[in-house]
Amino acid sequence: MRDSCPSNPAQIARSQIRSSEHTGITYGLAPDYVQCNLVILKAKHAYEFLVFCQRNQRACPVLEVTETGSYEPKRIAPQADLRTDLPKYNVFRNGKLTECPKDLCALWESDFVSFLIGSGISFDATLSRAGISVDRRHRWVLRSTIPTDAAGPFRGSMVVTMRWMSHQDAIKATQITARFPFNHGAPIHIGSPDQIGADLKNPLHGPEIGPIPTDQIPVFWACGVTPQVAAEAAKLDIMITHAPAHGFITDLKTNDVSLP
Amino acid sequence: MRDSCPSNPAQIARSQIRSSEHTGITYGLAPDYVQCNLVILKAKHAYEFLVFCQRNQRACPVLEVTETGSYEPKRIAPQADLRTDLPKYNVFRNGKLTECPKDLCALWESDFVSFLIGSGISFDATLSRAGISVDRRHRWVLRSTIPTDAAGPFRGSMVVTMRWMSHQDAIKATQITARFPFNHGAPIHIGSPDQIGADLKNPLHGPEIGPIPTDQIPVFWACGVTPQVAAEAAKLDIMITHAPAHGFITDLKTNDVSLP
Repeated sequence: MRDSCPSNPAQIARSQIRSSEHTGITYGLAPDYVQCNLVILKAKHAYEFLVFCQRNQRACPVLEVTETGSYEPKRIAPQADLRTDLPKYNVFRNGKLTECPKDLCALWESDFVSFLIGSGISFDATLSRAGISVDRRHRWVLRSTIPTDAAGPFRGSMVVTMRWMSHQDAIKATQITARFPFNHGAPIHIGSPDQIGADLKNPLHGPEIGPIPTDQIPVFWACGVTPQVAAEAAKLDIMITHAPAHGFITDLKTNDVSLP
Repeated sequence: MRDSCPSNPAQIARSQIRSSEHTGITYGLAPDYVQCNLVILKAKHAYEFLVFCQRNQRACPVLEVTETGSYEPKRIAPQADLRTDLPKYNVFRNGKLTECPKDLCALWESDFVSFLIGSGISFDATLSRAGISVDRRHRWVLRSTIPTDAAGPFRGSMVVTMRWMSHQDAIKATQITARFPFNHGAPIHIGSPDQIGADLKNPLHGPEIGPIPTDQIPVFWACGVTPQVAAEAAKLDIMITHAPAHGFITDLKTNDVSLP
């Protein structure tokens, strides 16, 4: 099954993660390839979760749904293995984050279905080429109070990504990211963390947040970590996700899934 | 439940259809509102159908999935009734089109789930304002040989919409429709019906097809009638769709679901 000779930067990155040669975040790896958020749950919950994604497309643009029991995303990363090709996972049991394993080999079950959901990391290289800083010291994953549209047990507030940039770059970033509807698209908010209830005190990922410099403005995108808040509400026996910023690197080239 | 005093063109059109004041195709009705293709099937098949839509997003962009048993699309047309608000339906039993009723009151079952899928009719008004003819004598719904990506029992070839226009208008139409990813987006083919196996001899909707005028070019879009071919393959006990060109008119304004 496995590709013994990785031939593109995405395959090389996955291979390094699989062998534990790379263990940290995936931010910056294989920059021109689409990265994904991951959700794994039992087949009996798959329909309601997919409806949740349909109802919250900005946060949860689905790029692939695997066949039940299969850990290979045949369409967007053939020969990859979702049990081993992400550096860190979050395991939720009854709505509580209980463990953060480095692989899922011991946890995999035959009735698992996997969902691969677009990620804003995918457009970093494009932002960078436009001269917009993608420094991860100015990028955070935050809870907000923007409501999602519930489906079955899946509900809760939206998770957002915040980036700081110059006011002019905010305009450029809005235009650029609108071209990537399968990776959250244009920002959902610019300027006021308060208006969307962004929880600046407890980032789900990123460093402690200081005061915003006066020559910068915060820009917010819907985030594919939103299902992890839905996992808390759904209280399934088991639901597994990627750990924030530890994503899955696909064989899709970012430019191939963007609008012109 | 019902809106006794329709207040927008979409509500007025639905009300006229419900009362049989309007009985023909919906082409041209409420021109600035999104029209949808409809699929109704039993809840036990809903997950595999939704995965089919995810795998074939160009043909099947899902705008709403109703709660099981509900005939009200609460999100995109509150107070509408999917049993009565389309002028004609296609009923498939064991993969065969068996009847074309004017309403579903006698057929409705408590385990039905409805899917509303974007339609190219939605961007007609925008094309028209750009000076592109949307004359329905030059618009057809055709089978093609473009494969779909199967999910469960749902499989088969893609259905396409063909329009004829000038070569210059084909360029304009491509740019304009790319702005409507939830209504099939940009064309999937321009120029050669043969290359996509378009069945010009047996249109699913539209008049008999003569020779293409030399100053015109055929332009093809993915079409939301594709599930009707999948219905033939799936051979479910019952699967109901709209009749081609007899769509569901939503309260969504086309401009509100388009890109800038």
